[in-house]
Amino acid sequence: MDYQAVLEEIYAEIQPELGRGKVADYIPALSKVDPQQFAFSIITEKGEAYHVGDAQKNFSIQSISKLFTFTLALDIYSKSLYERVGVEPSGTPFNSLVQLEYEHGKPRNPFINAGALVITDSLISHYQDDYKAFEKIIGFIRDIADDQSISFDPEVSTSEMENGYRNLSLAHLMKSFDNLDNDPRTVVQTYFKQCAMSMSTEKLSRAMLYLANGGTDPLTGKKYITPPQTRRINAVMLTCGHYDASGEFAFHVGLPGKSGVGGGIVAVVPGKMGISVWSPALNKYGNSHAGTLALQKFVEKSGLSIF
Amino acid sequence: MDYQAVLEEIYAEIQPELGRGKVADYIPALSKVDPQQFAFSIITEKGEAYHVGDAQKNFSIQSISKLFTFTLALDIYSKSLYERVGVEPSGTPFNSLVQLEYEHGKPRNPFINAGALVITDSLISHYQDDYKAFEKIIGFIRDIADDQSISFDPEVSTSEMENGYRNLSLAHLMKSFDNLDNDPRTVVQTYFKQCAMSMSTEKLSRAMLYLANGGTDPLTGKKYITPPQTRRINAVMLTCGHYDASGEFAFHVGLPGKSGVGGGIVAVVPGKMGISVWSPALNKYGNSHAGTLALQKFVEKSGLSIF
Amino acid sequence: MDYQAVLEEIYAEIQPELGRGKVADYIPALSKVDPQQFAFSIITEKGEAYHVGDAQKNFSIQSISKLFTFTLALDIYSKSLYERVGVEPSGTPFNSLVQLEYEHGKPRNPFINAGALVITDSLISHYQDDYKAFEKIIGFIRDIADDQSISFDPEVSTSEMENGYRNLSLAHLMKSFDNLDNDPRTVVQTYFKQCAMSMSTEKLSRAMLYLANGGTDPLTGKKYITPPQTRRINAVMLTCGHYDASGEFAFHVGLPGKSGVGGGIVAVVPGKMGISVWSPALNKYGNSHAGTLALQKFVEKSGLSIF
Amino acid sequence: MDYQAVLEEIYAEIQPELGRGKVADYIPALSKVDPQQFAFSIITEKGEAYHVGDAQKNFSIQSISKLFTFTLALDIYSKSLYERVGVEPSGTPFNSLVQLEYEHGKPRNPFINAGALVITDSLISHYQDDYKAFEKIIGFIRDIADDQSISFDPEVSTSEMENGYRNLSLAHLMKSFDNLDNDPRTVVQTYFKQCAMSMSTEKLSRAMLYLANGGTDPLTGKKYITPPQTRRINAVMLTCGHYDASGEFAFHVGLPGKSGVGGGIVAVVPGKMGISVWSPALNKYGNSHAGTLALQKFVEKSGLSIF
Repeated sequence: MDYQAVLEEIYAEIQPELGRGKVADYIPALSKVDPQQFAFSIITEKGEAYHVGDAQKNFSIQSISKLFTFTLALDIYSKSLYERVGVEPSGTPFNSLVQLEYEHGKPRNPFINAGALVITDSLISHYQDDYKAFEKIIGFIRDIADDQSISFDPEVSTSEMENGYRNLSLAHLMKSFDNLDNDPRTVVQTYFKQCAMSMSTEKLSRAMLYLANGGTDPLTGKKYITPPQTRRINAVMLTCGHYDASGEFAFHVGLPGKSGVGGGIVAVVPGKMGISVWSPALNKYGNSHAGTLALQKFVEKSGLSIF
Repeated sequence: MDYQAVLEEIYAEIQPELGRGKVADYIPALSKVDPQQFAFSIITEKGEAYHVGDAQKNFSIQSISKLFTFTLALDIYSKSLYERVGVEPSGTPFNSLVQLEYEHGKPRNPFINAGALVITDSLISHYQDDYKAFEKIIGFIRDIADDQSISFDPEVSTSEMENGYRNLSLAHLMKSFDNLDNDPRTVVQTYFKQCAMSMSTEKLSRAMLYLANGGTDPLTGKKYITPPQTRRINAVMLTCGHYDASGEFAFHVGLPGKSGVGGGIVAVVPGKMGISVWSPALNKYGNSHAGTLALQKFVEKSGLSIF
Repeated sequence: MDYQAVLEEIYAEIQPELGRGKVADYIPALSKVDPQQFAFSIITEKGEAYHVGDAQKNFSIQSISKLFTFTLALDIYSKSLYERVGVEPSGTPFNSLVQLEYEHGKPRNPFINAGALVITDSLISHYQDDYKAFEKIIGFIRDIADDQSISFDPEVSTSEMENGYRNLSLAHLMKSFDNLDNDPRTVVQTYFKQCAMSMSTEKLSRAMLYLANGGTDPLTGKKYITPPQTRRINAVMLTCGHYDASGEFAFHVGLPGKSGVGGGIVAVVPGKMGISVWSPALNKYGNSHAGTLALQKFVEKSGLSIF
Repeated sequence: MDYQAVLEEIYAEIQPELGRGKVADYIPALSKVDPQQFAFSIITEKGEAYHVGDAQKNFSIQSISKLFTFTLALDIYSKSLYERVGVEPSGTPFNSLVQLEYEHGKPRNPFINAGALVITDSLISHYQDDYKAFEKIIGFIRDIADDQSISFDPEVSTSEMENGYRNLSLAHLMKSFDNLDNDPRTVVQTYFKQCAMSMSTEKLSRAMLYLANGGTDPLTGKKYITPPQTRRINAVMLTCGHYDASGEFAFHVGLPGKSGVGGGIVAVVPGKMGISVWSPALNKYGNSHAGTLALQKFVEKSGLSIF
């Protein structure tokens, strides 16, 4: 298939949709981003890469980072972590406290904020220090993207911390249920730093290749996780990757994917390719409006689907 | 792969698990079933069938029927039905009223009871009569299973109706939100009849083939739905097919599947095969305990997965 | 105090408020009522009665009837009923299913619909028949109002039954939790008949005298319930009498009171008088807008309060 | 009435109940308290005081302090505060986040923790400083109790702060909804200091006299609030003073009252007396087990009730 032609078709068709929706405004540093931007990148297991739009432009990966910390934690913790974070869709918005209270502080899955905070907490405990843990996170992301220049934007993480009351509320609630080992403030701060990682669709699609290839980077040969672990991460992406629109995404796109409020979405076609799309304006579920549509067009045109 | 050997290995390994869990006791007619029973059937797109256990023994398919009415309704209604039933995981038990009230009578998905009732209601309206609608349902199931002898067990449906207060509550609640066209009692009665269909794993695995093959029966060539429709049904099965354990099922099994409180589970490997397993004792989520484990063993041994 | 002068002052001041709010429209037979109507009646323990407005005009008492069935049931059942219906404010709208599901079918109090249905159910069981139970209810209301001509409006109860899906949903839900002895449809039908009782503020204020006087009618000397029972009914009225605005009513009015969606409100000043006010247009909580304001003016002008 | 005899009767009868229930264990400094202790004090508007048990023994007043900060805030803020805190019973436990999230950060009433935090926040803003605010709170309590020696126990407040994750969660959640002006940590710290006030039943019953007498201390003549304000505070005590057992308390005791997890309860008979009872072991709702029973005995024996 001529993927470049497919991407260019999508790029043309998506123009009228750019800017529809709303840029995340609860993070001041993100609210200034131009909502008209768009990028779409794919890279196959053989390393053939295709791009349209602002594919080299960095943006804040936000919740996409949860995928990477989940991978890191999965490799380390195996069993014990499942007792602290489930793998069920939540049926509520990404930052809801309701379910967390009813379910005694155990988050439904690692992709809602509460779950991601527990994952980060577990990494801080494992690496014995929040700075060391964050170094490991950033190191892992650089490895899978095969780019040692990737870093985080301190303006974004500081801006989030100054307005991060809801995440602090979640963290303190879990601490009250004894489901957080470290100081809630430290955990939230580390979490905001991982969310503030700056990456382009080019780098993100590259970073997804290990999940397309059973846990091993097909280009460098580095093995990160096992094939069964990979399948499980992909399964959680499919059922929980888009918050309260995960079912819609599975229904309309049919690929494991994870979105972030920076407007990025990553996805994977198992055995075939890594995908990343970006457009900052969000739909009512907090997922990129144009990005979601573009992915839908991509599977319609390419016929790619796990179903 | 020697599927027969795989099934026999599973059959041997699963013995200690048989009878663990609890047979559905809220339906008196089902509570008498011997919990030790077990069957596992697969059939490939080429028609090669493999079985272990009581694969010819009929049981009550219960919620598996929702898959077939959803297929029928999808074909007929396209757009309008999505406004009445969503495609999101619910995050709550199969028969909860909480979410239904908060969301103004629109069920989360077609596989929770409320959603299945709306689907049945839409079929009654479409075929203008509950008897005609039920004839169509039974006819469709006979077609996809390629067995005109399949029928329903009136003792089971009567028994359910006599104890069906919660489903009547759901139906009346939706009626109060104007999301049911027909008399709530009639809808519930028709729904209980579809749940009371009697089938074996042999027949059910056969009945799944159209979903493994893009909507067309690979053995008879009959086309029921389009490939995109098929992918969407499979996506909904994956995200919503096991109630509040759908995420766990995706995580551990990684195949689109649908369970019923009769102890049956159906699943599909897109492009490859239809699967059905049965064992009456249920885990705490209302899914077959041994059936779920057997499927997990099957994917581990066969390496089959959509992820 | 010159109560007649106080009532006339209120009558003058309330004019601009008449018609503000919305007549209950989910009961077709009630939706036709002229929203401009208003009446205010009080009667002291000595039998001195004061009225303004349409005090002889009958209206549908609706939920005010719950007060009378609660009295009847309290007298009969003492302990056992408390296990089936609580005495706590609900914190949710009058007809919510959420709390009822979380709390396994036990209604929070006898003044939300679910609770009133259990009360009516208990009366049907006690009198062994829904017709006999309804005769007792109507007989009791005639006795306390000292008026044997009081009856119910079958057009209203029929209209409610035709649209009573939510109450049928509540009744079936409680039946599924085994907290209803009789057929849900029969219970709802009897409940709608008691709601359809037609009374004027003159009759309702008279009917409240036993609650102002420790359970004994001060004018006829008939003893209905004991002083402790009376105090308890008044306490439940205060904490639960206005659904999710009970706290507001206690805060602003400070008297035990009970409202109905027909626009009527009854209240009592223990040791002093029975009160009834009526105006059909409702505020957002389903309580009479002008009626609530008029009662607030009454306590401000008279200084009467239990606090 | 011979109140001393009544109290002594109660004291004898209550002996078998002492120690039943559980001392609050989530505050380490409180968990060490001897659960067998008991005290009951009343003081009439004329200053006649009656006591039994450990009436001079100080204990942690905990949530009873909410009554005093509410009084202070009511005097200052009138209207604007009602937009930030309601006056409705909550229908949920004292520290639940569920309702707070559904209702966008506006607490149901000033007596659940969230509401009390907003009240304290408003006092901090009004007095421009948390230390000044706390001085005012302590000064007000000393005035109404007519005892300048009253103080707080820093061991208790520190102990609460070290385990105050849930209150920090509530505070951050409200801050995220912009319903807290000051730093959440500062607000929670000030709140824990007010909760750690040490008082005896003798002092607490004395401190209640202004609420029995329309807002003016009947013994010193000091006017704190107006009669309508007093009635409103009493109304909120009755509907919300015992968390999710407020309806039960109104039903069985029938007086405005407020409990604390230190085992204290205060109550008031309008126009007659201030009451305080204490016994540390709590029932399942977090209210003093023996204290609640003793108050029930008191109203049964004295016939005092607002209903």
